[in-house]
Amino acid sequence: MQIYKTIAETREALAGEALKNKIGFVPTMGALHKGHLSLVERCHSESDLTVVSIYVNPTQFGPQEDLNHYPRNLEKDIDLLRNYHVDIVFTPDDVQMYPEGYCTWVQVEGLSDILCGASRPGHFRGVATIVLKLMHIVNPKLMFMGMKDYQQIIVLEKMIEDLNLETKIVRCPIVREPDGLAMSSRNSYLTPDERQRATCLIKALKNAQKMVNEGHLDSSILISEAENIIKQSDGRIDYIKIVDGSTLQELPEVRSGSRMMLAVYIGNTRLIDNIELLP
Amino acid sequence: MQIYKTIAETREALAGEALKNKIGFVPTMGALHKGHLSLVERCHSESDLTVVSIYVNPTQFGPQEDLNHYPRNLEKDIDLLRNYHVDIVFTPDDVQMYPEGYCTWVQVEGLSDILCGASRPGHFRGVATIVLKLMHIVNPKLMFMGMKDYQQIIVLEKMIEDLNLETKIVRCPIVREPDGLAMSSRNSYLTPDERQRATCLIKALKNAQKMVNEGHLDSSILISEAENIIKQSDGRIDYIKIVDGSTLQELPEVRSGSRMMLAVYIGNTRLIDNIELLP
Repeated sequence: MQIYKTIAETREALAGEALKNKIGFVPTMGALHKGHLSLVERCHSESDLTVVSIYVNPTQFGPQEDLNHYPRNLEKDIDLLRNYHVDIVFTPDDVQMYPEGYCTWVQVEGLSDILCGASRPGHFRGVATIVLKLMHIVNPKLMFMGMKDYQQIIVLEKMIEDLNLETKIVRCPIVREPDGLAMSSRNSYLTPDERQRATCLIKALKNAQKMVNEGHLDSSILISEAENIIKQSDGRIDYIKIVDGSTLQELPEVRSGSRMMLAVYIGNTRLIDNIELLP
Repeated sequence: MQIYKTIAETREALAGEALKNKIGFVPTMGALHKGHLSLVERCHSESDLTVVSIYVNPTQFGPQEDLNHYPRNLEKDIDLLRNYHVDIVFTPDDVQMYPEGYCTWVQVEGLSDILCGASRPGHFRGVATIVLKLMHIVNPKLMFMGMKDYQQIIVLEKMIEDLNLETKIVRCPIVREPDGLAMSSRNSYLTPDERQRATCLIKALKNAQKMVNEGHLDSSILISEAENIIKQSDGRIDYIKIVDGSTLQELPEVRSGSRMMLAVYIGNTRLIDNIELLP
């Protein structure tokens, strides 16, 4: 496992590999958990060469957000990755990725302004920009991303299609704690009490899925039930929406491919989760 | 010389070429003149494989601009290119480049809002976006662009640097008519009288260069003299600026690398030109 801090070293190590080998890529912000590691395993099984990046991208955090407190533990992350089949770890700093005078941004309009984008202005602009930069450096055939960040996948798939890139995103299932809480680096912010209450997200989603299976397709009723479950655990709702799984447009009635998407504050920690309501 | 109308055919023809051969690329909007053809010749001399694109990119035209009247003559352009060493001509239509639902844009902030960008809001967003798309399709090592569109080169060089692309732009000299008018597809709009008056652009630039050689370095004096020359020919000035050749920032005094940049309406036709004032 080679560890590179610079774009130049990473490029050099990968020069010519894209034609000979199928490069698989797992972009991360570190603080690796089992969700990330499942992406790394999947990447290894489907690629010839596994590249992982660890970089807390400042441009996807808003000014009032948790950039400064976001968990960072590069040594531990690298130790974890040594147990997996990783060929290259790319760990740039801000000067590598956003040198002085940096001024180029990628915007996926429409898809970036709804759901998490409405609560976090500029978030997906930062995500699209850093991922495009990383893709130019790594040149992956496959990119492995977890479906907890479902909107992120949709935004990036649209960017890839619109900008005529050839990378394919492999959508990987959400990895959950035994009680159903979706794995997230931000779970470490939760107090023991909050950690217990945080299970309301998956409870609300599972309840909606169950209601759909019983024939309830009206979005407003499903959302209202989900709201009740979140409120019972003192969660503060950012949004709960039922959307088309491809376009992310809100739907008045559940149909094939519909998803329930939610963002909820438990204490000061903002958690997101989502579920497919009907295959 | 192969001519492809689709992204898929172009990709297929170029698959694997980027590693074996140095791909050179000349993006154009057609209506080819000697300026374009000098880029094609230069591309052939410095590349293993010469790719030319012909596409009038609608997203770089403002709503009040000349998109509908922009000269188009694909047959004649292709006939012209047959006299040169061109391997691939890519001639997509709007459905190829901007299919329904297209929504991804690249913005090079700051550099895109000044000079031509101030008069043509959204112009450089359209330019950056289409060139990035074409670069992803063609994967060029070298891209050949004329210095008449000097700001365009600066914007695209910044995009390439910021987005970690490896393409190098080869800046090619402005090709001029015998009387000094910079070659441009838009020169075809000019009436015989306007065509004669249009030489005021190069006269104003050459006069400024001469004054600098004589020791006059004050930008306001140089610009004022240029304004007089333009006005004597009934030109309507959009802008005349003296800027740093790398950053495009306005300079109160000429120094090494300074350029005079101007945009002038002759009748209804907007013409641009520029010159280096001091090496």
